[in-house]
Amino acid sequence: MSDVHTPKRGRPGYDQRAILAIAVTAFNEFGYDATSMGVLATRLSLSKAAIYHHFSSKDEVLQLALDEALNGLEGVLRESGAVTGSAIDRLAYVLRGAVLVLADRLPYVTLLLRVRGNTEVERDALTRRRAFDRAVSTLVVEARDEGSLRSDIDPRVVTRLLFGMVNSIAEWYRAEGPEDAAHLADDVLAVALDGLRRR
Amino acid sequence: MSDVHTPKRGRPGYDQRAILAIAVTAFNEFGYDATSMGVLATRLSLSKAAIYHHFSSKDEVLQLALDEALNGLEGVLRESGAVTGSAIDRLAYVLRGAVLVLADRLPYVTLLLRVRGNTEVERDALTRRRAFDRAVSTLVVEARDEGSLRSDIDPRVVTRLLFGMVNSIAEWYRAEGPEDAAHLADDVLAVALDGLRRR
Repeated sequence: MSDVHTPKRGRPGYDQRAILAIAVTAFNEFGYDATSMGVLATRLSLSKAAIYHHFSSKDEVLQLALDEALNGLEGVLRESGAVTGSAIDRLAYVLRGAVLVLADRLPYVTLLLRVRGNTEVERDALTRRRAFDRAVSTLVVEARDEGSLRSDIDPRVVTRLLFGMVNSIAEWYRAEGPEDAAHLADDVLAVALDGLRRR
Repeated sequence: MSDVHTPKRGRPGYDQRAILAIAVTAFNEFGYDATSMGVLATRLSLSKAAIYHHFSSKDEVLQLALDEALNGLEGVLRESGAVTGSAIDRLAYVLRGAVLVLADRLPYVTLLLRVRGNTEVERDALTRRRAFDRAVSTLVVEARDEGSLRSDIDPRVVTRLLFGMVNSIAEWYRAEGPEDAAHLADDVLAVALDGLRRR
């Protein structure tokens, strides 16, 4: 499978991470099912054997790609800002963190948002994604119970609208650096918590 | 092409609208490209000829389905609540109307939200969808200029977050009647305009 026309010497040395990044872009562009290991090999100018050196299967590529997104989101829940302080502050911290992870790991989160549960790897990812959603939902309920959030909207609807707003960012955001992402997170919190109306 | 094993007499009489409804469900389930006229005929227990009696092509089925969603949204922009009064009231009216159209024509709007512009029919639909988005964006700018919306967030970001929230409803909403949809529209306006924080 090796291509004698491609000089080995001048070719960038792909490690697992670099292959993953290119694989995720291909999954998002063509769909996971339509992206074979052969397609990936062509994109990377690598042999399939070289890819199998780093990944045991296409499923493992998917799993590691989804891990990038999920580990990022789950990591936010473990940070001190997510576990100390008032519920509304913890909610704000987690929403901000979710926007920052989305902006920082955009293709991985985009892939995660498209997962429909067709394979075991996808179902595991969905389970973890739902656990993250539930953690946010719990914060919404706690913030309402402590009296800092309005109580006239069903917390389930609130959580869904919040994720609707946050997740939609994946459809139009193009990375322009961490400052830009932080600004975007400010905007999301401003709209979600305080609303658009001028006071 | 007619199927002698299917009794004509007992079969429900499908008109164009009824065929459209079933076609849209199939497009959303399998994807437009994967849904052939043959697949539709099987689902409807009709011959392909019977479908071609109502539609000149699969493209026409798609166009009429997307029209359902777009005519609904564009209709909101022409209602008096969308063209008279303060900009913030018009914005609220249009957002509410978009939620109601989405809830009322859920499969059609879902289809519209998945259009990527692969054919002329899809590109025309995208052009109309963007025109609707721009109309909302214009209302956001007018509402900010009249002093009723906060001015510290880029109107383009505001518009995108608003549509992120509204469009995400298509992913989880299951019709439970107009009262339910009206309540949901109230919730969207409450979050978007006044925020979740208790005052």
